[in-house]
Amino acid sequence: MKAKMLSPVWWEDGELVLIDQRRLPWEYRLLRLRRVEEVADAIRHLAVRGAPAIGVAAAYGVVLGVREARHETELIAQFSQTVEQLQASRPTAANLKWALERQRRVLEAKLGGERESVVQALLSEAHRIRQEDIEANLRLGEYGAQLLRDGDRVLTHCNTGALATAGWGTALGVIRSAFSQGKRLKVWVDETRPLLQGARLTAWELQQEGIPYEIIVDGAAGALMARGLVDVVITGADRVAANGDTANKIGTYPLAVLSHRHGIPFYVALPTSTIDPEIPDGETIPVEERHPDEITNVYGMQMAPEGAAAKNFAFDVTPHELICAIITETGVLRPPYESSIREALRSSWAIHRVSI
Amino acid sequence: MKAKMLSPVWWEDGELVLIDQRRLPWEYRLLRLRRVEEVADAIRHLAVRGAPAIGVAAAYGVVLGVREARHETELIAQFSQTVEQLQASRPTAANLKWALERQRRVLEAKLGGERESVVQALLSEAHRIRQEDIEANLRLGEYGAQLLRDGDRVLTHCNTGALATAGWGTALGVIRSAFSQGKRLKVWVDETRPLLQGARLTAWELQQEGIPYEIIVDGAAGALMARGLVDVVITGADRVAANGDTANKIGTYPLAVLSHRHGIPFYVALPTSTIDPEIPDGETIPVEERHPDEITNVYGMQMAPEGAAAKNFAFDVTPHELICAIITETGVLRPPYESSIREALRSSWAIHRVSI
Repeated sequence: MKAKMLSPVWWEDGELVLIDQRRLPWEYRLLRLRRVEEVADAIRHLAVRGAPAIGVAAAYGVVLGVREARHETELIAQFSQTVEQLQASRPTAANLKWALERQRRVLEAKLGGERESVVQALLSEAHRIRQEDIEANLRLGEYGAQLLRDGDRVLTHCNTGALATAGWGTALGVIRSAFSQGKRLKVWVDETRPLLQGARLTAWELQQEGIPYEIIVDGAAGALMARGLVDVVITGADRVAANGDTANKIGTYPLAVLSHRHGIPFYVALPTSTIDPEIPDGETIPVEERHPDEITNVYGMQMAPEGAAAKNFAFDVTPHELICAIITETGVLRPPYESSIREALRSSWAIHRVSI
Repeated sequence: MKAKMLSPVWWEDGELVLIDQRRLPWEYRLLRLRRVEEVADAIRHLAVRGAPAIGVAAAYGVVLGVREARHETELIAQFSQTVEQLQASRPTAANLKWALERQRRVLEAKLGGERESVVQALLSEAHRIRQEDIEANLRLGEYGAQLLRDGDRVLTHCNTGALATAGWGTALGVIRSAFSQGKRLKVWVDETRPLLQGARLTAWELQQEGIPYEIIVDGAAGALMARGLVDVVITGADRVAANGDTANKIGTYPLAVLSHRHGIPFYVALPTSTIDPEIPDGETIPVEERHPDEITNVYGMQMAPEGAAAKNFAFDVTPHELICAIITETGVLRPPYESSIREALRSSWAIHRVSI
């Protein structure tokens, strides 16, 4: 691991600190949060985004939500409210639900003890979730890097880097790992409308690392593939169903369809915390619909006529048959995904059981 | 035809008047051009855009370029320079080349006569090109409307309306025709990055007509199709090759691929002046690459990090096998396109020969 690793979310002096990702690349501004309402707001308004980073922020949010409780009854009540509030902040990211579930298990295991020690256990679990995410990304980065060849031109979507996780990144972590192994890569960065996480955040990360890239509009991937300019596509994920169907940022599914047509490998990269085994398939994944203003108004500038209507699904679902491999910290999963995912979760659960 | 028809390009008091489409929807501003350099600039910088509208503007540009000539030798020299200048302004739109070719034929037919009468003949031809484009759009609108059913949800890309033509529109003209026949339609408007002609111009036209629409980001078409929310896709074209391969605004090809996967009819609508029979197939169509700033800088706001690189192909090519029909003023062309296109051009040339 690098001595100094970029992370968008950490705990400091009893506060949850976030890099405010709405302000990048223009300004590096930190938010210091002391109340769970602030955490839910930061998640809802995308100050922190990316499924793994949301999970980490929510784990710390639980600590902020319960630490003022004066006795166990109050602690239990506050825990319920906190979980409800955080869960409602964004519906699609599996890691949010997963992190809250981990905190619930800690609470249940520690109930009956000192209030202080319960809060401390929740904080330790949040630290562990954060640290595990970094380690999972580093591991999946190594596994994924084996799929990239020297000279590959890699197309990616949205931001799946350090900023989307506790550190290192998922799809961008794979790119980072391959690049740090000395592989020469060129990255095609989908700008990723409406909120331009590719142009704003992925370009910012790649520029800092010195990894060559060019930004394209989301509609350009097909033209690049038809011209033979794309060797591989890797994206992250917000929730993976038990059968491998994958919800990710709107615009991912077209990339998978185009990759399929052009015989280009399409991979998704994610820690197993993004897999939701309770969801059988993509049709059951809840897909967030966000405010139309995100489309019609580009960072304060109204682009469409006044009163224009817009439909703003934040995610789409890529069916498993279009996914060549799912890159996780337990290894590279291949179809049939029902069984490879089940196996991956078994080994990751084994790790977690040890840690609790 | 309607009493008052929106047109972005006309001749008035010896000047070429254009609606400055860079300023819509914020401001309705007219440009009044007296020199061919201004016309080439207006085309290059997209004050006028859309293949048919570019063709009309260029036809008038020829008049501005030669009208000061003092004798025939000068007129011939100025004509050559004018054509070269206009042709260089944008490489992909077939109508530009086609309109200049029509003016060349007029020049050749009129040489030897009075300089005044040559200029007058070029002006008359420009008027004819403009009027024919409106009539072609109305006719192709009628043909295309037969392909739309009451209640259809139609997805379209870029702006192909009155603003992209001499009036009425191509793909949007089809929608307009079907709507004016009383068919209830819902239009999904791709915002169309980088320059947002969908969000800015198509939404503006639809709003004025009272046709229900919602803007989506370009990456969302796949999600809408997967949810069963799209019945038909219609786009315009910038150049159609002899085999039916079609260059159109970047992002069109992915729509065709997605439509194919979902069994949704994918149509292109265009006057035959957009067909270039000298180009055998899509690989030979010249595709313009524009400045990366159009992507990294959204109307004056730098969205990517300073110094970020971007690749900006303005068009992509949809192979003919993904196109269910080509809607023209001569009728609805079906595969095999080599023969249906040849037939369509024959009947449209017959019309033109009569007019000269």
